[in-house]
Amino acid sequence: MPKKVPHRLYLTEDQMPKQWYNLRADMKELPEPLLNPATLKPVKLEELYPVFCEELAKQEMDNTTRYFDIPEEIQDFYKMYRPSPLIRAYNLEKALDTPAKIYYKFEGNNTSGSHKLNSAIAQVYYAKKQGLKGLTTETGAGQWGTALAEACSYYKLPLTVYMVKVSYEQKPFRKTVMQTFGAEIIPSPSNTTNVGRMILEKDPNTGGSLGCAISEAIEKAVSTEGYRYVLGSVLNQVLLHQSIIGLESKIAMEMLDEYPDVVIGSAGGGSNLGGLIAPFMQDKLLGKANPRIVAVEPASCPSFTRGKYAYDFCDTGKVTPLAKMYTLGCSFIPSANHAGGLRYHGMAPILSKLYHDGYMEAVSVEQTKVFEAAVFFAKQETILPAPESAHAIRVAIDEALKCKESGEAKTILFGLTGTGYFDMTAYGSYLNGTMTDYIPTDEDLQKGFDQLPQIPEE
Amino acid sequence: MPKKVPHRLYLTEDQMPKQWYNLRADMKELPEPLLNPATLKPVKLEELYPVFCEELAKQEMDNTTRYFDIPEEIQDFYKMYRPSPLIRAYNLEKALDTPAKIYYKFEGNNTSGSHKLNSAIAQVYYAKKQGLKGLTTETGAGQWGTALAEACSYYKLPLTVYMVKVSYEQKPFRKTVMQTFGAEIIPSPSNTTNVGRMILEKDPNTGGSLGCAISEAIEKAVSTEGYRYVLGSVLNQVLLHQSIIGLESKIAMEMLDEYPDVVIGSAGGGSNLGGLIAPFMQDKLLGKANPRIVAVEPASCPSFTRGKYAYDFCDTGKVTPLAKMYTLGCSFIPSANHAGGLRYHGMAPILSKLYHDGYMEAVSVEQTKVFEAAVFFAKQETILPAPESAHAIRVAIDEALKCKESGEAKTILFGLTGTGYFDMTAYGSYLNGTMTDYIPTDEDLQKGFDQLPQIPEE
Repeated sequence: MPKKVPHRLYLTEDQMPKQWYNLRADMKELPEPLLNPATLKPVKLEELYPVFCEELAKQEMDNTTRYFDIPEEIQDFYKMYRPSPLIRAYNLEKALDTPAKIYYKFEGNNTSGSHKLNSAIAQVYYAKKQGLKGLTTETGAGQWGTALAEACSYYKLPLTVYMVKVSYEQKPFRKTVMQTFGAEIIPSPSNTTNVGRMILEKDPNTGGSLGCAISEAIEKAVSTEGYRYVLGSVLNQVLLHQSIIGLESKIAMEMLDEYPDVVIGSAGGGSNLGGLIAPFMQDKLLGKANPRIVAVEPASCPSFTRGKYAYDFCDTGKVTPLAKMYTLGCSFIPSANHAGGLRYHGMAPILSKLYHDGYMEAVSVEQTKVFEAAVFFAKQETILPAPESAHAIRVAIDEALKCKESGEAKTILFGLTGTGYFDMTAYGSYLNGTMTDYIPTDEDLQKGFDQLPQIPEE
Repeated sequence: MPKKVPHRLYLTEDQMPKQWYNLRADMKELPEPLLNPATLKPVKLEELYPVFCEELAKQEMDNTTRYFDIPEEIQDFYKMYRPSPLIRAYNLEKALDTPAKIYYKFEGNNTSGSHKLNSAIAQVYYAKKQGLKGLTTETGAGQWGTALAEACSYYKLPLTVYMVKVSYEQKPFRKTVMQTFGAEIIPSPSNTTNVGRMILEKDPNTGGSLGCAISEAIEKAVSTEGYRYVLGSVLNQVLLHQSIIGLESKIAMEMLDEYPDVVIGSAGGGSNLGGLIAPFMQDKLLGKANPRIVAVEPASCPSFTRGKYAYDFCDTGKVTPLAKMYTLGCSFIPSANHAGGLRYHGMAPILSKLYHDGYMEAVSVEQTKVFEAAVFFAKQETILPAPESAHAIRVAIDEALKCKESGEAKTILFGLTGTGYFDMTAYGSYLNGTMTDYIPTDEDLQKGFDQLPQIPEE
């Protein structure tokens, strides 16, 4: 008899993972190394120390350690909001009249409103342990900034957040949440950094970009004694911390004698996607199972589906090392009508490599279709999803509808990364019919590609 | 050896309560009956049918049935967002350096952001079962309106929400959430009802009040074929549905071999408080235990602590039956600087009776102290509480600090009814120091008391 599947399955504290999983340890071919942009040589560990705290730099460079013990203090913090539930979408299945079994891992039930807290607390823990005096970061939609503000408040570590100006102005409440947790919020570009002043001089009315906010946050960190910079996505260390999502999901599914035929995640910089798929991708790399793994990105910021796999800067100001990744060029900024997050010009190097090597699929979706899925989902499952998360919902629904046609009872797992409570302006524009789509033309994209750094062949 | 207490305890689906508990069945003396304002005779069941759906009217009048089976469909809906966790506030305890053990029942992890969904789904279920064509209601802070919009969307039942105008204007995002779930939102007072037009004629610039929105919603319901009115607090039926909060809490505490010395709940109309305390009050009524039970209300809307125990209308427009309750008079409107909910002029008749008979304590707190507690709590426990919920937090902290002084290791249980994501304007004003307190003078209150209906002695 098949096991009775509850609507929501929570692991007990004893069942929660005590280690993070490092995908790189099982990859047949590793991602290309970071390069120093001046020398074009692989970056050495010590070169990262002025920017990242030491333990995190080590995690960033470690391609061999398969499992990292989660420090007990971080485990204890996780217990304040984890485990997150694995939810069986009974009502969504019914509404779609599909034979598919749909599961989602819901990471939004914490005040950051997303999975970002999983890496934020880890990064702040190591920073505190190293005796640092403060941190800087950037935030776009605000989920990462909120998560980091919570973590810094917990460890009483000062935090300066460069918030993309257009978000700062459109999401004043996000700003207030971060301030409630004691963070200092600066709209970016700002005149607190050289790179900010330079950008403002060129275009005083710019709404800013994530790449620009990163540049400012790094400059501030390296120029302030005892400060370091932290980032909520893209990096190897972030995917490592976020593996908790996939590890919990896999344990929960095993308890139900289930295994996903397809795993679907929204993809911006890759933090949620990389975390969700980690143990399933491991099975795939080790030949133990062969689930389909699908990345979903906005049609307005299509780094996987239309980007180049090339070395590029991680920021607009070109102060970071070069990373080999799918990229639209570090000057790329999604069009102004793009709502929510998933607006980074590149994609995590680990995921880029896996995609390049054929281990994953990627699709892009237009935002009106995304919001259509979001509203439909909310009405069935009573959770108002973040626009970012709704990208995965869109494709999960599409997959379930294909099952309806084919009559296949596939098992679908997707990541519901967060809630949309601070995205009501975007929901409002969808509801009143003023939301538009935008797909960059090939010419638009070429401008970004033209600026990719030239790396001589070895 | 004492049991290891997890940070968060979730019941399994099997452990979830399958019945609601009706406090009235165990009360030594019952609350006074509702009176027909025209005849001053007790209201008969049938007289409620034009306003309430029949099954709910029966629940409203039933003083003897101790347990009501929760219909299976409602149990299934509950499983989409329940059980809510019982949380041990380890970090708050540590920050307060108190020997007290602090537990809280967290009802905010659903899109309505509060416990209101527990009664909303029940009321909509019975309405649907009766074949009604639509519902009307009012909302102030917006949690009830959102919960009802979710429930109506689930059952595809049209909903019209009269939203207190000042909230409608100050909380546009709440409005959008309700619209996402398909509800029609009308700022109150409006020109869609006689009572609304009357109030607007007297004061075209009024920001409205909960009592006025209730009058409009009732008028709309009784004048629209197949429509009924539903209410999110105050009523006996609502306290019945909300007993799920206390029942779950008690089961969870029993699993931990714990029993609260003091149970603390925020009190507006009484829905959360009545639900949270239900099984603990039962123990008290039956002489099985004697926990302290503490209601916390805003100093700006002090119905328990400064109101009169008297018959009064439940709405401003004086269209409802008369209820015997602690009241500030149905014309009372909290001062404009009052943030968030807990702004109703009266208190649930069941709770009013229990308070009058000495089974409960009540305290009032000023809002700057409430927000101070909210921010402190958020920093320790990573949850941003609703202003309403923070009233209970304030007193839980005060009780824990008393324990620190006395060295007593008391067990404190409080209700964390919801999250504050739509209250960032209020948080902002607290953070920037512009938030003020207001305590009505005796003269202010006397104006409300002067208008209480005169009921001749029997």
